Amino acid sequence: MANDPALGDLAQLRDIVRQFVDERDWDQFHSPKNLAAALTVEAAELLEHFQWLHNGRPEELGPAKLVEVRHEMADVLVYLVRLADKLDVDLLGAVQEKMVLNRAKYPAEQVRGDARKYHEYKS
Amino acid sequence: MANDPALGDLAQLRDIVRQFVDERDWDQFHSPKNLAAALTVEAAELLEHFQWLHNGRPEELGPAKLVEVRHEMADVLVYLVRLADKLDVDLLGAVQEKMVLNRAKYPAEQVRGDARKYHEYKS
Amino acid sequence: MANDPALGDLAQLRDIVRQFVDERDWDQFHSPKNLAAALTVEAAELLEHFQWLHNGRPEELGPAKLVEVRHEMADVLVYLVRLADKLDVDLLGAVQEKMVLNRAKYPAEQVRGDARKYHEYKS
Amino acid sequence: MANDPALGDLAQLRDIVRQFVDERDWDQFHSPKNLAAALTVEAAELLEHFQWLHNGRPEELGPAKLVEVRHEMADVLVYLVRLADKLDVDLLGAVQEKMVLNRAKYPAEQVRGDARKYHEYKS
Repeated sequence: MANDPALGDLAQLRDIVRQFVDERDWDQFHSPKNLAAALTVEAAELLEHFQWLHNGRPEELGPAKLVEVRHEMADVLVYLVRLADKLDVDLLGAVQEKMVLNRAKYPAEQVRGDARKYHEYKS
Repeated sequence: MANDPALGDLAQLRDIVRQFVDERDWDQFHSPKNLAAALTVEAAELLEHFQWLHNGRPEELGPAKLVEVRHEMADVLVYLVRLADKLDVDLLGAVQEKMVLNRAKYPAEQVRGDARKYHEYKS
Repeated sequence: MANDPALGDLAQLRDIVRQFVDERDWDQFHSPKNLAAALTVEAAELLEHFQWLHNGRPEELGPAKLVEVRHEMADVLVYLVRLADKLDVDLLGAVQEKMVLNRAKYPAEQVRGDARKYHEYKS
Repeated sequence: MANDPALGDLAQLRDIVRQFVDERDWDQFHSPKNLAAALTVEAAELLEHFQWLHNGRPEELGPAKLVEVRHEMADVLVYLVRLADKLDVDLLGAVQEKMVLNRAKYPAEQVRGDARKYHEYKS
């Protein structure tokens, strides 16, 4: 498994996933559309663990479910990293860029701790 | 914005998101359950850009949609990193652990390039 | 708009959607795969209205949000009815068939009012 | 199982689901928020069957998968009908109301058979 400490985490993950896919000749199934669908499916499988819980904190989830949740989170990240690879998106840069937009959209002094405002702003 | 090059990408992202949330006093809304729902909603907003396309490759998507897709991918990663923070999950370790399981579940020599098998294995 | 009171609700809905699609020559985009993606996207848009709320009951939602929720629910049903039309699925029969399976899987006397059991059974 | 032919399909479904839930004392878990999450999870489970296929038509899906798809569609409808019951939403009326809005938003003569326009209009 490729694992170069000089690479950032996300580049390492990209290489790990790339190698896994290449060994199986699965790139042919990885259109961005299919990957976006698979990513959504994995996110929903993650949500499934929480749907009937109050808040899903570790003490409510329990250790066995927490392991499953951890694996579902890994699946989400694998598909996200793969989609980024196929679309040539730099994920770290994308988040930094998006956070600038979010800071403009949700000024701290206007939205602080206000659930209603938070909700309205988000929707 | 926190940005320490000595930290890995994912730890940097965790700190960026943590600071953004703290400035707005939004931690109170961030139960794992709510974050899992928000992650799924963002994944579906990403999928929405692809739903009527053939494959969603950059040439079909076009440059304007690609920017929007990039931002939706950032949103997905933000909620995933935030959920990992709240559940104390090491995302890089979780993917490495999951890939070991995936390698056992989908042996390269058995599933290579076979769409039907791929599908059966996945489902 | 087709509206035959002798038809059941679901057959009426099928005809309403069919006519809308035909007038726009949109059947060409309605592969089952695309419709399943669109259905998931609409379900997530519905979920978005609830993601930061406590329970989403009408008094918490408020009248304006309730109208939006009502419309998102309509969108979900439209895509579900359209998918059923394309796959020749009788939705009423499918639910009746599934409820027989559910009754066998979740015997009332074993799962009554037990959140933990309910959750375990569901996952 | 309640089954009154004088009721419309959707009212029949509401009664079938209501009885199933009451027998298990599960109403306590059915906040609108939880139901919206469960609906999204079921929609994604439906999508999962299609994610690596070309178009998901019955001949590509095959008879065994079609049965599973039929059951996932039933699950989606069950949660939608249950959510409608909890929010006192008339689903047939909601679709009729939404279709009027859709007809205004997507005039047939402007959007006919144009994938690009269709996509732009939808997004």
